[in-house]
Amino acid sequence: MKRTSMEGAVCPVARSLDVIGDWWSLLIVRDAQYGLRRFGEFQKSLGVAKNILAQRLKHLVDHGILETQPASDGSAWQEYVLTEKGRSLFPILVALGQWGQEHCFEEGEPRTRVLDKAHGQPVKPLEVRAADGRVLTVQDVRLDRPATQG
Amino acid sequence: MKRTSMEGAVCPVARSLDVIGDWWSLLIVRDAQYGLRRFGEFQKSLGVAKNILAQRLKHLVDHGILETQPASDGSAWQEYVLTEKGRSLFPILVALGQWGQEHCFEEGEPRTRVLDKAHGQPVKPLEVRAADGRVLTVQDVRLDRPATQG
Repeated sequence: MKRTSMEGAVCPVARSLDVIGDWWSLLIVRDAQYGLRRFGEFQKSLGVAKNILAQRLKHLVDHGILETQPASDGSAWQEYVLTEKGRSLFPILVALGQWGQEHCFEEGEPRTRVLDKAHGQPVKPLEVRAADGRVLTVQDVRLDRPATQG
Repeated sequence: MKRTSMEGAVCPVARSLDVIGDWWSLLIVRDAQYGLRRFGEFQKSLGVAKNILAQRLKHLVDHGILETQPASDGSAWQEYVLTEKGRSLFPILVALGQWGQEHCFEEGEPRTRVLDKAHGQPVKPLEVRAADGRVLTVQDVRLDRPATQG
């Protein structure tokens, strides 16, 4: 199924989704954040078909989220590493993970957790805050749409 | 293309993506957060085919993110409103929107912004924080994987 491109959208959410690509792309970024670098490593982690993985890696490189570099061990393999733009997807993955923890697991069911390296504690739940520091829910915000272009 | 279900994954990010469904589903949630309620309103906003929209709305209702209720004006239409589980997707959408603003627009290009209703100011950039309040980047965290089940 061909997805409509949202690259011209005025909504930053829509543009993000367009640039990220799809669910697989986000899981590749997740794995890259935790140190996976090689095609075979991503394939093993994701259990995805090689052609799909190759397309998604290319998409992420084309959009500046991953970059390729020679293998760190001097072998002929190519490695994929996150750019600064890719590393800044971190809050999106934390937000997805926290929502999943809260809503998609039974109590006591085993799950992966993101821990602060320094103290080994789980990271705090993300909070959306106003400029003055108040915690905001969706009811506390409104959308400001740009004027339609003439 | 049939996507592999990740409902049994130990990774909360993978489960979230599975429950949310796909990009369209997130854009439906975005629109529902800002007051859209009817099939025709979502269709106009998203420009998506009716059969795709109907599938995605059903998926979101089946997964407890939206619920249906009779039209608020007493007409025969059905309305879709976010549940508490659906409203709690708010930080995910804010994270996606902030990343998109930062990385997917040229300077000065018109875009939708999320403003605090009380003061009309943009919301603060999301920060991932440790239990003791330190701001964390992806380099400051590690994954804690559950032991493999025997």
